[in-house]
Amino acid sequence: MEPLYPPGSGVVPREALKSVSGLEFMQRLLAGVIPPPPIAVTLGFAIASVERGRVVCKGAPGANALNPMGIIHGGYAATLLDTCMGCAVMTGLDAGTGYTTLELKVSYVRPLDARSGELRATGRTLQVGRRAAFAEGEVRDAADRVIAHGSTTCLVFPL
Amino acid sequence: MEPLYPPGSGVVPREALKSVSGLEFMQRLLAGVIPPPPIAVTLGFAIASVERGRVVCKGAPGANALNPMGIIHGGYAATLLDTCMGCAVMTGLDAGTGYTTLELKVSYVRPLDARSGELRATGRTLQVGRRAAFAEGEVRDAADRVIAHGSTTCLVFPL
Amino acid sequence: MEPLYPPGSGVVPREALKSVSGLEFMQRLLAGVIPPPPIAVTLGFAIASVERGRVVCKGAPGANALNPMGIIHGGYAATLLDTCMGCAVMTGLDAGTGYTTLELKVSYVRPLDARSGELRATGRTLQVGRRAAFAEGEVRDAADRVIAHGSTTCLVFPL
Amino acid sequence: MEPLYPPGSGVVPREALKSVSGLEFMQRLLAGVIPPPPIAVTLGFAIASVERGRVVCKGAPGANALNPMGIIHGGYAATLLDTCMGCAVMTGLDAGTGYTTLELKVSYVRPLDARSGELRATGRTLQVGRRAAFAEGEVRDAADRVIAHGSTTCLVFPL
Repeated sequence: MEPLYPPGSGVVPREALKSVSGLEFMQRLLAGVIPPPPIAVTLGFAIASVERGRVVCKGAPGANALNPMGIIHGGYAATLLDTCMGCAVMTGLDAGTGYTTLELKVSYVRPLDARSGELRATGRTLQVGRRAAFAEGEVRDAADRVIAHGSTTCLVFPL
Repeated sequence: MEPLYPPGSGVVPREALKSVSGLEFMQRLLAGVIPPPPIAVTLGFAIASVERGRVVCKGAPGANALNPMGIIHGGYAATLLDTCMGCAVMTGLDAGTGYTTLELKVSYVRPLDARSGELRATGRTLQVGRRAAFAEGEVRDAADRVIAHGSTTCLVFPL
Repeated sequence: MEPLYPPGSGVVPREALKSVSGLEFMQRLLAGVIPPPPIAVTLGFAIASVERGRVVCKGAPGANALNPMGIIHGGYAATLLDTCMGCAVMTGLDAGTGYTTLELKVSYVRPLDARSGELRATGRTLQVGRRAAFAEGEVRDAADRVIAHGSTTCLVFPL
Repeated sequence: MEPLYPPGSGVVPREALKSVSGLEFMQRLLAGVIPPPPIAVTLGFAIASVERGRVVCKGAPGANALNPMGIIHGGYAATLLDTCMGCAVMTGLDAGTGYTTLELKVSYVRPLDARSGELRATGRTLQVGRRAAFAEGEVRDAADRVIAHGSTTCLVFPL
C-alpha cells in the first residue's frame, strides 16, 4: 500500500477518502499507512484493531489530561468513545460515502485517574443506514472494569 | 489571596477544595490564583467568566486537535462543554461539597475547523440539588453561531 | 381550511404531508383542522402554540401514567419533549420534506406527581439543516419550575 | 406471598418498598403479587423476566400510541426503555434503598409501526453504586432487529 498523502500532516485529503471504502481506510490507519491524526498524538491513543462494525482503540491518559481535582478530565473518555464509535461506523461505509458525528453521549461509570493504566475503548455499530448510523461503545481499564459507556448518532452522506 | 498549593502542578489538593465554596474556587481559578488545569493547557482553553450558575470558557482549537478529515475532533467541544457545565455546577456548591460528572451529551450542530476562530462555551445550571445537579451548555464561534450544544448530569456529595 | 382527511383516525396520509410546509401542517394541527394524534389523546396533551422554530404543548398527566411508586412515569415527560421538539423541527421544513427523530435525551430535573398540575413543554430548534436538525426543550410545571429538559437530533429527508 | 397493598391501585406504598430488596420487589411484580402499574396498562406492556442486573419487558404498541404520521410515537420506546433499565437498576438495590431516573437517552434505530409485532425490551445494569447507577437497554422487534437503544443514569438513595 502506498501512502495516500505526504506523511506528517495527519490529515487525509478528501479525494483520498473518496477512493477507498471505510473499512479499507481504517485498515490503512491501523497499518500506519495513513499517519495517526493529531488528536491521537495529543491525547495518547491509537487504533488497536479494526473489523467490520467494530473498532478498538487503546490509550493511557497522561498528566496532560488531568482536571483541577487530579482526575482525568471527562473529555478524555469522550474523545476515545467518539473515536472508536465513529471509526466503527466508518467500517460500514462504501467508498464515496462519508459520515459526521451528530451527537455523542458519555456515561462516566467509574473515575479515571493516573493509576487506571492502559484503557481499551471498543466501538460497535448498532445499524449503518444510507442516511444515518448508530453505534455504542465502552471504555474498560486494565482490570477490564467498565470506566465509561457511550452511544452516538452519525449522519451518512455521499462525499 | 495566597496560592492554595505550589504553582505548576495544576492540580488542587482535596483539602484546598474543602475549605472554600465552589463559587470562590472558580473565582480563584479565574483570577489565576489557582493555576489552570493541565487539560486546559493541552487543548488551549481557559475560564473567561464566573458567576453563580453560569461559567464561560474561551478557547481556540489548534492543529493538535484535528481528526483525520481535517476537522476539529468532536472530543474538543465535548471537553469545553464538560468544563463549562461542570464549573457552572461547581458555582452552586457549598464549601465541603464536591461533584463529579455522571454523564454528558453533546450535539454537534455545525462542524469546527481551523477557521472557526475563538470559541465561547457557556455552561448554565438548570438545578443544583443536594444529591444531583443538571446543567446545559453551548459552544458558539466567533460569528456567534451555535457550534455545539450539551447537557450534563452531575452527582453532588460531601467531600 | 378543509380537513386534509376524514376526521377521527388521527393519522395524516403521507400525500397530505407533502402538500404543505411543516409550519402550515403544525398550524392546522393547532387549529384542529387536523385532528389530534392518538398518543396525545392517550396521554392527555395538546399543541398550545406554534411559531417558526418554537412549539409549545400543554398537558396534565393523569393517573393512567403513574409508575409503581406513585410518581408520573418518565415516559410521560419523554413523550411531551419528543413531541414539542419534533414539532419545532417540523416548523422549519419546506413542503415535500419530512423528518424523523434519531435520538432523544431527557433530564429529569424534578419529580412529577399528581400535584404537578398543568405542564407546559416548549421545544426550540437549534438548527434545521438540509439533512439533520437539532432542538432542545423543557417541561415546566404550573409554578414555572423546570421539571425536565431535553435535546434531540432529527433526520431531515425528501418525502 | 401476600399482596403488599390492596389490589387495583397499581401504586405501591413507600413502606412496602422499604421492606423488600429491589430484586424481591421486581419478582413480586413479575409474579403479579404487586399489580401492574397504570402506565403499563395504558401503553400495553408488562415485565417478562427478572434477574439480578437484567429485566425484560414485553409489549405491543397499539393504535393509541400512534403519532400523526401513522408511526408509533417515540415516547413508546422511551417508556419501555425507562422501565426495563430502571427495573434492572432496582434489582441491584438492597432493602431500604430507592432510585430515581436522572436522565435517559433513546436512539431510534428503526421506525416502529403497526406491523412491528411484539417488542422485547431488555435493560442491563452497567454499574450499581451507593449513590448512582448506570444501565443500558435495547428494544427488539419480533424479527429480533434492534428498534431502539437506550442508556440511563439513576440516583440511588436511602428510603
